[in-house]
Amino acid sequence: MLLCDIGNTSFHFLDEEREYKEDVALFEPETIQEKVYFICVNQVVSEKLSSLENWIDLAAFIDMSKYYKTMGIDRIFAVEALSNAVVIDAGSAITVDIVKDEVFLGGFIYPGIGAMQKTYENISPALAYSFNFECDLDIMPKNSQDAISYGYLKTFYCEVMSHKMPVVLTGGDASKLKQIFQNAKIDTQLIFNSMKKIIKENEEKLC
Amino acid sequence: MLLCDIGNTSFHFLDEEREYKEDVALFEPETIQEKVYFICVNQVVSEKLSSLENWIDLAAFIDMSKYYKTMGIDRIFAVEALSNAVVIDAGSAITVDIVKDEVFLGGFIYPGIGAMQKTYENISPALAYSFNFECDLDIMPKNSQDAISYGYLKTFYCEVMSHKMPVVLTGGDASKLKQIFQNAKIDTQLIFNSMKKIIKENEEKLC
Repeated sequence: MLLCDIGNTSFHFLDEEREYKEDVALFEPETIQEKVYFICVNQVVSEKLSSLENWIDLAAFIDMSKYYKTMGIDRIFAVEALSNAVVIDAGSAITVDIVKDEVFLGGFIYPGIGAMQKTYENISPALAYSFNFECDLDIMPKNSQDAISYGYLKTFYCEVMSHKMPVVLTGGDASKLKQIFQNAKIDTQLIFNSMKKIIKENEEKLC
Repeated sequence: MLLCDIGNTSFHFLDEEREYKEDVALFEPETIQEKVYFICVNQVVSEKLSSLENWIDLAAFIDMSKYYKTMGIDRIFAVEALSNAVVIDAGSAITVDIVKDEVFLGGFIYPGIGAMQKTYENISPALAYSFNFECDLDIMPKNSQDAISYGYLKTFYCEVMSHKMPVVLTGGDASKLKQIFQNAKIDTQLIFNSMKKIIKENEEKLC
């Protein structure tokens, strides 16, 4: 079974055990003949795929009334995978969603690591540091690198921990955030697992 | 008495009661003949002013051992003005500093409102919203505008409130943040007041 999670920059495939990515700007989806189950946040790609019969959009099997209109389908699939958790998907944006007793309570969006580093750089060359993920968030910083690291990480940490729920990390930067959320569970295949779950639940319709 | 707080983009003057700004790129400091007491975070301007006798750098009167080497002089002056507070200076960057019993405990730097709005915009056109300062930070958002507003504001709010200290707001965006920190005190002239205090304490040396 071939799965594909399509973002703004890449097609992220899972072919049984093997994961690989293709560039959105270069990849031609019509070159694939077999059935592909996908989700897609990229409007342009979505339109292209709607004419290809072997590309099956799994968004069609979600009860969208539980979510809000402009919510990304990747966030929805992350939420669908869990019953009680704060789900953090750390990519170019970091999305944080709360699921309680299988009900989506809402969520927020925080800038991704790369985006936020650029933000500090653009404010002033004096703030052009990489974040220090080993910065001690229990004491107030007394140097510039820690001052921006704390500004980005501690603020975020405070909000997430205020929910007093298990934290699940996914996305490309999950392991970096794990340094801050030391008790969090990393699940890099959360979205693919959610896609498999939806396929299983809708087996009859999909065959 | 003429005071001047020099930032990265402007000379901010206080001439007795009258406040005005001049563009860093256009203003020629040698056109002023009278004595000017100033602080300056702008390296290029600092070098220029060092050759002008009537421009008096108030940084020389601060015990710098209480602070850290790369800390902006504007932050130091904000801290010098207070005894027990979380001081938030909201400009292109937002600096947050803690003073307890007149001792500086440390501080952090968070992106300013304009910078952070651009960050979200750059991540995706789908996130190109203005922040909603009336967003209810007690409930998890269920729309995109509130999802980024909450992401920017609630995370910041959580950290600041965790110190359980009085909050003082200054800088150009103080009144916007007042909508979030409803019990905070706004002091738009905090840095000028601090400059006056330092001048008074060092009157003998300065005459």
